Formats: sequence, structure tokens, C-alpha cells
Amino acid sequence: MAEDYVPTGIPGVDKILVGKGLPRGHTILVSGGPGSGKTTFAIQFLYTGATQYDEGGVYVTLDEEPGDIRKNMLKYGWDLKKLEEEKKLVFINVSPVRVAPSERAGLIQIGMKEFRLIKLLEAIKQGVEEVKAKRVIVDPLTIFTLQYPNEIERIYAMRDLMRDLKKTGSTNLLISELRGTGLEREHQFEEYLAQGVVLLRTFPKGSRLIRVFQVEKMRGLAIDNQPRPYEISAKGIEVYPSATVYK
Amino acid sequence: MAEDYVPTGIPGVDKILVGKGLPRGHTILVSGGPGSGKTTFAIQFLYTGATQYDEGGVYVTLDEEPGDIRKNMLKYGWDLKKLEEEKKLVFINVSPVRVAPSERAGLIQIGMKEFRLIKLLEAIKQGVEEVKAKRVIVDPLTIFTLQYPNEIERIYAMRDLMRDLKKTGSTNLLISELRGTGLEREHQFEEYLAQGVVLLRTFPKGSRLIRVFQVEKMRGLAIDNQPRPYEISAKGIEVYPSATVYK
Amino acid sequence: MAEDYVPTGIPGVDKILVGKGLPRGHTILVSGGPGSGKTTFAIQFLYTGATQYDEGGVYVTLDEEPGDIRKNMLKYGWDLKKLEEEKKLVFINVSPVRVAPSERAGLIQIGMKEFRLIKLLEAIKQGVEEVKAKRVIVDPLTIFTLQYPNEIERIYAMRDLMRDLKKTGSTNLLISELRGTGLEREHQFEEYLAQGVVLLRTFPKGSRLIRVFQVEKMRGLAIDNQPRPYEISAKGIEVYPSATVYK
Amino acid sequence: MAEDYVPTGIPGVDKILVGKGLPRGHTILVSGGPGSGKTTFAIQFLYTGATQYDEGGVYVTLDEEPGDIRKNMLKYGWDLKKLEEEKKLVFINVSPVRVAPSERAGLIQIGMKEFRLIKLLEAIKQGVEEVKAKRVIVDPLTIFTLQYPNEIERIYAMRDLMRDLKKTGSTNLLISELRGTGLEREHQFEEYLAQGVVLLRTFPKGSRLIRVFQVEKMRGLAIDNQPRPYEISAKGIEVYPSATVYK
Amino acid sequence: MAEDYVPTGIPGVDKILVGKGLPRGHTILVSGGPGSGKTTFAIQFLYTGATQYDEGGVYVTLDEEPGDIRKNMLKYGWDLKKLEEEKKLVFINVSPVRVAPSERAGLIQIGMKEFRLIKLLEAIKQGVEEVKAKRVIVDPLTIFTLQYPNEIERIYAMRDLMRDLKKTGSTNLLISELRGTGLEREHQFEEYLAQGVVLLRTFPKGSRLIRVFQVEKMRGLAIDNQPRPYEISAKGIEVYPSATVYK
Amino acid sequence: MAEDYVPTGIPGVDKILVGKGLPRGHTILVSGGPGSGKTTFAIQFLYTGATQYDEGGVYVTLDEEPGDIRKNMLKYGWDLKKLEEEKKLVFINVSPVRVAPSERAGLIQIGMKEFRLIKLLEAIKQGVEEVKAKRVIVDPLTIFTLQYPNEIERIYAMRDLMRDLKKTGSTNLLISELRGTGLEREHQFEEYLAQGVVLLRTFPKGSRLIRVFQVEKMRGLAIDNQPRPYEISAKGIEVYPSATVYK
Repeated sequence: MAEDYVPTGIPGVDKILVGKGLPRGHTILVSGGPGSGKTTFAIQFLYTGATQYDEGGVYVTLDEEPGDIRKNMLKYGWDLKKLEEEKKLVFINVSPVRVAPSERAGLIQIGMKEFRLIKLLEAIKQGVEEVKAKRVIVDPLTIFTLQYPNEIERIYAMRDLMRDLKKTGSTNLLISELRGTGLEREHQFEEYLAQGVVLLRTFPKGSRLIRVFQVEKMRGLAIDNQPRPYEISAKGIEVYPSATVYK
Repeated sequence: MAEDYVPTGIPGVDKILVGKGLPRGHTILVSGGPGSGKTTFAIQFLYTGATQYDEGGVYVTLDEEPGDIRKNMLKYGWDLKKLEEEKKLVFINVSPVRVAPSERAGLIQIGMKEFRLIKLLEAIKQGVEEVKAKRVIVDPLTIFTLQYPNEIERIYAMRDLMRDLKKTGSTNLLISELRGTGLEREHQFEEYLAQGVVLLRTFPKGSRLIRVFQVEKMRGLAIDNQPRPYEISAKGIEVYPSATVYK
Repeated sequence: MAEDYVPTGIPGVDKILVGKGLPRGHTILVSGGPGSGKTTFAIQFLYTGATQYDEGGVYVTLDEEPGDIRKNMLKYGWDLKKLEEEKKLVFINVSPVRVAPSERAGLIQIGMKEFRLIKLLEAIKQGVEEVKAKRVIVDPLTIFTLQYPNEIERIYAMRDLMRDLKKTGSTNLLISELRGTGLEREHQFEEYLAQGVVLLRTFPKGSRLIRVFQVEKMRGLAIDNQPRPYEISAKGIEVYPSATVYK
Repeated sequence: MAEDYVPTGIPGVDKILVGKGLPRGHTILVSGGPGSGKTTFAIQFLYTGATQYDEGGVYVTLDEEPGDIRKNMLKYGWDLKKLEEEKKLVFINVSPVRVAPSERAGLIQIGMKEFRLIKLLEAIKQGVEEVKAKRVIVDPLTIFTLQYPNEIERIYAMRDLMRDLKKTGSTNLLISELRGTGLEREHQFEEYLAQGVVLLRTFPKGSRLIRVFQVEKMRGLAIDNQPRPYEISAKGIEVYPSATVYK
Repeated sequence: MAEDYVPTGIPGVDKILVGKGLPRGHTILVSGGPGSGKTTFAIQFLYTGATQYDEGGVYVTLDEEPGDIRKNMLKYGWDLKKLEEEKKLVFINVSPVRVAPSERAGLIQIGMKEFRLIKLLEAIKQGVEEVKAKRVIVDPLTIFTLQYPNEIERIYAMRDLMRDLKKTGSTNLLISELRGTGLEREHQFEEYLAQGVVLLRTFPKGSRLIRVFQVEKMRGLAIDNQPRPYEISAKGIEVYPSATVYK
Repeated sequence: MAEDYVPTGIPGVDKILVGKGLPRGHTILVSGGPGSGKTTFAIQFLYTGATQYDEGGVYVTLDEEPGDIRKNMLKYGWDLKKLEEEKKLVFINVSPVRVAPSERAGLIQIGMKEFRLIKLLEAIKQGVEEVKAKRVIVDPLTIFTLQYPNEIERIYAMRDLMRDLKKTGSTNLLISELRGTGLEREHQFEEYLAQGVVLLRTFPKGSRLIRVFQVEKMRGLAIDNQPRPYEISAKGIEVYPSATVYK
């Protein structure tokens, strides 16, 4: 039987998650600005899962192409191609197409109108079975939710996505794009629906900008909700769980 | 005959409520951000009611599934399953469905269009009778009010909900989602209609974020409206009614 | 013949109103946030009128039910039932209905569409005659004005309401809901149309929130427009007309 | 032949207007918040004109009734009735009507739809001829411009109003309602179209709110555009042209 | 052959423009608040051109009437009538008409609908030929762009205007109205399309408001983009190119 | 075979890009305010590519005319005409036309409606082949994306543009217009879709405005994301990679 928690393996993060990791089976929102390392965070979660915990991973990409992700992650020494060959990782490239669809092979071709929840979920389930995945990423959630022009429809679509992801038994990260750059912002409905929320932000401090990691919410776990500095180095993301951020 | 006030039993809260508790029969808005402990607050109110004051409780959930709530609350040592078996607590899972409705059993299946006040109220009344409930939670109110696109309609719908809840004689918490993260925000119409308003927020203070509890409004009670720090520990929520928040 | 000014009898307020009170026959906007004591202020004005100045009062409620108001005001020792029996106070419960109208007795039943100015004014005139009222409250104005979706229509509706209230000879308070919580806000059109504006707000000062009373406008009276602290105690509202608020 | 400038006669104001007054024939916007003394400023301009400079005045009111204005101005010792009898002042009550129009006598009765520029201008011309007016007030401009839902239409309507007012030869004040309460605000299109702009605002300074007068713009005159404190006393408005406002 | 740069002749401005002036043939946006001296700036540019550099000027006015401009500019000692008689300056009064068009003579009468780019350009070309103009003003641009309700249409219309102005060989100032009063504002699309942007603003500094001149952008010239104080005196505008503004 | 990185050759920039330059084949957003030197930055990238690295360049202009760019860049000593004659640079003037299209020669004439992705891409491919370009600029992106009124359509159009640019093998800069002037702003969707984001902004520091360069995001490269001062001198743009900006 599975453990109750999924260690992220990302330096500093599991300590913030009271030494345990993410509650198994939960769906967590990871929200950050451009260049905040959202994709690095997600891949690091899958890579550690595959190499340290023998847990397969599914990466559903709605924007960046798998080839680009594979190439960009090499700078951290993460050989994703090898994981894919060992059946420990699978990319699912779910991408709405508008121009010259016949030119794009190896891509689930769904028109803008039909790009809907059911097709997305079928693809995820297939991927989960293929590598017996315990960890799933959807990146970015925004491309999916923007398709529903009405707010109440967007809420229902995200709830349905979360309920169906739950049936797979996997632990899931939904990657989301922060809009505001400042301290004061509007909470998004996704933050309320998700079972956990992780924020990756950037704030000025003294003469520098610093990167700030915060677990805003984690159902089922009495977490440290303080903001903590993090860095993106040649080894990926590292969070400093004992350092403070506000002056 | 019933007492005039309902002790919350949540450490520190009843002291702020002038040693009495919530005015019996009133409907109170509990508004907070993601991860602020709104659900913990609500369950703690029901759990204390059932175990210390022998008052049954109804938890109407419009978002999270009862199974998840039961599991998440175990971390506080609250065995909700046991209360349900003792007929001291009942969950009502009112959830609009969009995909594959036949797959979801044990769920009041109402389509998006028909998900309306009357069905919600019937379900609540049934639950109240079942456990002779004195305490009722609706979580979150947002899923309910968002269905009314027009503001004046939303106001009428919430007033009707409040008037009908009043007939049950129960004391009710409506859980609501704060939008802004800062000190300056727009008051929502729900804050005016409710008979009491409790805010659960997070502000930076010195080098840390602190959690801040505030009774903004409580009709029929001359309360302390000062913001007070609170914490979420392994025992649930605890408010510090004598500590100050602003510098 | 009537005096030119109507003493409010609320401690501290008449001193701010240059020792006189409100100009007789004027219509004053009382605007405050949730829990700011708007209803307490209004009832205190009527109660003092009835008990100290022998002036009857009409309370038009568009939201809270009279029974709740009667009960909530007991905490200040104000027995409204007694005043009603003595024909010194009358409640008018003008409430648009949506669900099961036949269940609600003793309530002027007008549908949402017909809930309009003329019916409201007829009810007020009747009430004024019944107790020979000199003081009238409409609480809250928002429920009334929100029915006019177009701004210019809302302005006309409020002007018509003010002109007809004027014919009764009574001095009137229109209770209004503040939206913003901060120092910077947009003036509402109601503030321009009303002959006087009283603000009940809450600001942080030092380590505490303080309640702040301000007469922003009072036609026909050279008032003190400085913000002054106020408190809500077991005796109702008390304003401190000599204390300063800004640091 | 007429002088080139029109002294306002309001203490302190003409000094700010380089000792001269308003350029004769110009149309000036007077913009202020509720209770800022806009109407007092306007009446003081007419009253001084009639009593000190023998210039007749027209007061077009789109909101407050002439009777109320007459009464409210008595507190400054200004007997408007007398000026009217001496044919030095005339009120024009241009008021759109919605309810029971037959009840309102002595009022130019135009329906909401027909309440348009031409009727307004005819009324003004008639009034100007009646008292050989050199000074005209339109109070408030907002009721007039709000009738044009489209911004470009509003701009055209105000320009037409200004061009036709110009033909009368009178010097005109258009009274306008400020929306924002803070230092940062959006300039309104009226400020660009008017030949001069006077602002009446309120700002916190030290432990008090102070009233601040500012001539933001005055075509044809090299004015002092610094904000200056003003007060409303038993003699009307007085501006302190040598005192500074910002710390 | 013409020089590459057009000296403005406005004290201090050419020094900021690296001692040269505006790049010949460019179209520059001059944006300022009410009373900031935008029209004075523009006329000073034309007047200096006509009197010191023998360059004719065209002033296209979409708002203020030529007669008013002539009169207002006399306070600086600029006799525009004389320049017009010497064929060194021509006013073009392009004004959409709504009421009683037959009353307005000497005015290009185009209805609101037909008031379009082509008529405006024809009028400008005619004026340029008439005085062999090297300098053209359009004041204000806002009246022109507001007619295009759709943003992309407004962008195209302004680009077409700029391309056609370019064919005349003249150096052009488009006068534009600033909306925000504060330091933080949204850049307008006009600022991107224009080849140069000059801002005339007002900021508080110490105990006073100061006028601040800034060349935000000037294609083809490595300008000083620092904000500099300016004054409007009896000689017109003077900028202080060596003084600093921020504390 | 091509190197993995493309040196920008712009002083200071490659040091920030860890001594390497831009990842070859990536599409980078360059976003700045009016006058921030976006076009200078782009031309400097092409000019250095052509003269120091023997890499051809394509400049797609959707706003400024090639003749103006050639002239304006002469101030930096960059003779673009010569590069064009040497087949190292080509301008593509893609410009929607509204008025008198027959007058404009040497311009790809597409109507507003047909101005779409496919025509733009054909033109780019042709240009890339013509000079065997390794570097491509699209300036400004805004004119392109504004044509899609719906946000989700704009996202798809930009993704399609990025995917097709990728096929050319070139390294691309998309020039974008910043809206807000302050520190707090909304991230734009373009920042998420682009593989890199460079910001050119202006902030007050002490008594001056300073220009601030920041690489907000650069996929595939562990860059310095700190803001750094830059200047625009007679040699073009220079960034100071070791200086700090925040106090």
C-alpha cells in the first residue's frame, strides 16, 4: 500500500511540508510569474520521483513543446529522454491547433472548439497507465481554463478536472500563471479549489530582487505558511526553509 | 428552552464574543483567503457543538467532497465518521455535475441550471431534521451566489437563503472567499446582509506573515472588533484575544 | 411651530452639529461599513426622538426584519415594542419577495418588478401619518437604488425619493453601505444629492482599529467636518467631538 | 464697455487670480467633493456681483430647489429673495421629472428624454435678459452630462453648452462633482474643455483634515496654481492665498 | 535645403534636445494635464518659428476657437493676428457641429459622422500651402481619436494621420490630454506611435506643486530624458534644463 | 554546425546571459516603455550579428517605416543601407493600410481584415532566405496581437507565430510595449509564452530617473535576473551588469 505523503525531493521543500511532502492523491496549484521556475519545479518533482522514489510521472504540456523542455532541463543534468526510454516519464502534448494542422505530427490534434475536458482526461489516463504514474503535471492550467469564457463554467471545469485526476490516485501539480507583480493581489478561484497552493514570486529586498517560495495552503497538513527565499542554480530549485523574507 | 447564545468552543473566540458565543439563530459570514482555515473553523464549530454541547450539526459542502474533509480533519484528532454514526453530524454533498453524472453516486444530482435555492433548502431541512441540528455550515457560499449573474438577484438569493435558514432555528456559518489580499478592499454585499462577519486574513508583520482573526460585525452583541492573531496548530484554530496586531 | 433643528440626542453628535442638531426637514445620508453601527445610529435617533423630544418615528426596513431589530436593540436597553404600542414608532417592512410569497405575512408584498418608488412612498406616508412622525429612516438605501441598472435613472429615483420625503416635513436618514475600506475612495452620487452626509468608518491607528465619525456635509449648517472617534457601548453610540484622529 | 476681468469678491481668490478676477466671458469649472462648499462659492460669486459690482446673476439649478438654496444661504447673511426682488438675481429650476409631474409648479417641466441642450439654453438666455446678467451658474453640470451615455457625445454637448454660454457675454461657473478623494485621480474631460478649473478639496494634514483651494487652470491669466487652504465660516468662503498646504 | 533640426526657441528646451531642436519632419506628442500650458507651448513653437526662423505655421484647433487663442496669447505679448496678416500663421478651425450649424460661419462644417481623417488632412495641406508652413499643430488629438471607438481603429487612424503629416515635410506637434495625475500611469498607444513624446506635468515637492517638463522619447536624438522644472511666466514657457526634480 | 548560443554583442548584456548570449533558436520578448530604446536594442542585435558574427538579419516593421529607422540609426554610426546592399539585412514593411492604398509602394499591401498570421509568416520566410538570416525582429508585436479581440485567440496566434518562427532556425526578438509605468504591474500573457523576457524600464532613484535593464526570464539558461542600469549613448545601448538598482 502507498505511503500517505509524496516527498518532493526538492531541497528545502519537504522540510516546509513538515518533513513529509505533499499529501498523496492531492492536486496542488503551483503559481508563479514568468521566469520563476514553475516548469523547473514541476520537472524536478517528476525527476526526483522517478530516480529516487521509483514513481512514474506524466507531464501534460499545453504550451511548450516536449523537445524544448527536454533540451532546457539538460542544464540541470536531468536526462528526461533516458527516463522516457525507461518508461518512467511520458510527455503528453495537448495542443490546440489553428494553422496547417497536417504539418504537426506526434501531437494530439484537437481543434480549438473540441479542446475540452474529456479529451484531456483520456490522454492523462492513458499516460498514467503507460508509466504507472504516481505524479502528474498539467502546464499551464491557464490555457485550459481560458477556454471557458464564463467564470462559473471555469470553476466547474476545474472541479471536474480535479475530481477526475483524483481517480487516477496520482499526486498532481497544476501550473498556473500569476498576474500581479506586487504584494497586494486578488486571490484567484483556482487557489480556493486546489487542495494546496504553492507560490513562486519575486520581491525587491534591499538592493536586490529575491525569489520567494510560499506554501499558502495545504489541506491535511499543518504547514509552515511563511514565505521563504529560494534560488535556481545548476542543480535546480533550492528553498531555504529557515530564512525569513520580510524585513 | 434554548440558550440565547451558542458557544463556539474555539479557544479565544468566545472571549471576543463577550464570553457568550454567537447569537443563537443568527447567520454569520466567515470570510478568508486560501489556506486561512475556513473549513477548519467551521468543522471545529460543529465538532465542539456535538461533543461538548450535544448539538447536532449539518455540513453542506458545495466544493470539497465529504471523504476528503473527513480525512483532512483527522490531523486535528476529530473523528467525523464517528459523529456521523452517532447521528450528531451529517454531510450534505450538493454538487452541480457536468461530466458523466451516472458515475457519481451518493450525491444530490442537480444540473447546473436547476441548482437553485429551493433544492438547496430542502436538502438542508432534511439534514437538520435528521440530526436535530442546531448548527449549520454552507461551504462555500461563492459557488451558490456566482450562479446569479445579476447583482440584485444575488442579493435576493442570499436574503432568501438567510430567511429560510432562520426558520430552522439553527445557528449558521456561511463560508466565503476573500478576493483581495491587502488591507484595502471593497466590502462585499454579503457582509451587509449577514448578521455577523468573521474575517480570517494574513498580513505581514516584521519579518513574518501573521494570521489575523477579526469579528467585523455581530448584530445583537457589543463585540471586540479589534483584529487578533490566531494560529492553526495540531488542535485546530486558536485565537489570542488579548494580543494586538497593528504596530 | 416646529424648531429649525432636530437634536439627535446621540452623545457628542449635536455638539459637532454646532449645538443644534440636524436641519429640520433635511434628508441625511448615513454611510458606513459592516458592523459600523448604522442601524444603531438610526434607531438611537428615533428612540431619543420618541423618548426625549416626543417626536414619532418611522423605520422603513428593506433588509433586516423588524423582529430582529427589536431583539438586537434590547442590548442597549431600548424597548422598541413599547414605543410601537405607544404609537411613537412604526416599522415598515418593505421587502421584495422571490420564494413562496404566501408564507410571509405582515409584509408589504411587492414583486421584484413592482417594487418601485410609488409603493415605497405610499407606505412611508401612511407610517408618518400613523405616528405623526417627525423622523424617518430608510435602511438600506442600497436595496432601493440597485434596482435601477442605469446610473442616471438611479439619480432620478433618489431625487424623487428625496423630494417626496421632503413633503412629509420629517427629518430623514438614508442608510447607505460603504464599499471601500481605505482612506481613498470614490464619492458616490448619493453623497451629492443628500443634504447632509455622515460617515461611520474604521481606520487603523497605532496598534488598534478605531471607529471614526465624520460629518462630511451638512447643508445649512457650518459644521465641524473633522473626523472624530466614536464607540459603540452598552448605551449605544457615543462620539468624542474634541478628540483628533489623524496622527 | 465692460472690464476685461470679473472680480469674484471672494476673500483671497482675486489675489490668486493676480489681483484681477476671472477673465470676462470665460466659462470656469468649479469642482469639489460633497460638503466642499461648491454652491456657497457659486452664490458668493453672484451675491458679490450683485451687491458690490452691480452685475446681475442667473443661477441654473439642476438638483437643489431654489427654496432650499435661499434658506441655506441665510446662514451667511445673504438675502437672495431681496436680490431677486431687485431683479439682480434669478433662479432657473431646470429639473427632469419622473413622478406626478402635475404636482410640481413653477418648474420647467421637461421629460427625461427631452431634457436637452436647447431647452436649457433657452432658459438661460431668458434669465440672462431678465436680470441683464453678467454672471451665470449651472449647478451641477453632472446631471446634464450624465444624460449622454457616450463619451464623445458628452464632449460635444459640453462644448456646445460652452459656445452658447459664450454668446451671452456672461462669465460662467459650471459646478462639477469630484469623484476620487485622494491626491491621485483621473483628469476629467470637462477640465480640458473649460477655460478655467477651480478645485475645492479636502486632504489630511497632521492631525486634521484641511480644505484646499486650487486654481488648476485659467486661460488668459498667469495664475498661482499652488493649492491654498480655505475655510467656510459664517461669512462664506475665505481662501488664504499665502499659506502653503503640502508639508 | 532645410536643416535637419527645428529649434523650438523655447528657453531651455533646445538645450535638452542636445542643442539642436526637434528632428525635422517628425511628429511629436505633447501631453499634459489641464492648465499645464500645452497650447502655450504649441503657440510659442509657432511664434518663434515665424519670428526668429522665418518658418510658417499651421494651427489646427479642434476645441478652442481661434479668437480665444489670439486673445489669450496676448498676455505673452504674442500678436498672432499680425502673423496671420503676414501669412506666417494660419488657424484651421476643424470643429464637429451638433446644434444650429447655420449660425456658425468661418468654420469647416462637417457632421459628427463625416468628421474624418481625409477632411482633416485636406484642410491641413491647404493651410501648409497657404503659409508654406514648416510647423504644424493639431490641438487636441483627443477629439480626433475619440471618434474611433475601437482601439485598433484608433491606432490605424493615428498612424495614417502621422504618415500623411510626414508628406507635408513639416514638423508637427500633436497636443494630447493626460488622464492620470500621479507618478504611476498607463502609457497610451499614442506615445508609442509618435516619434517623440514631451510630457508637461505637475508634482508635489516639499511644500509646493512644481511643473515638470520631460522629453520621454525623441527618435533620432540622444536626448536628456530627465524630468526638469518649468515655469509659465509673462514671456511664456521656460524650462530649467539643469535643475533636478526628484528628491 | 551552429553554436548553441547567439551573442548579442550589446555591451554588458552577454555577461548577464552568463557569458554566452541568447539560446539559439529561441524567441525572446523585449518589452519597454516609449523612448526606452527597444528599436535601438533590436537593431544593435542585428547590426552586431551582421558585422561581428556574419549572421544575416530580418527586421519586420509593423509601425515605423524602414526609411525612418535607417535615418534614426545613423546617430549611432550604424549604416543599415550598406548592410542591406551587402545582403546582410533586409527590412520587411508589413503594414495594414486604410487610406489611399495605391499611393504606398514598396509595402506589402494587406487590408485590415486579411492582415493575418499566414501573410506575415510568408514574408518572414522570404526575408530569412534572402539574407540567410539567423536573427529576426518583429516590431512591434502589439500591432499584430491587437487584431485578435479575444484573449484566447491572441494566445493561439502568438503561439502559432512562435512555432513557425522556430522552424526558420533563427533567434528572434519580439518587441512589445509596456503599459504600466510603476513597479507593480500585471504580467502579460506574452511573457509566459515567450522563451525569454527582457524588460527595459525607467524608475526614479534619488534625484534622477534611471534606465533599468532586466532579464526576467530565459529558458535554458541560469541567468542573473537582477535589474541592472543601462544607458543609451552615441554608441547605442550599454548595460552595467555589476551595478545595483534598488536602494
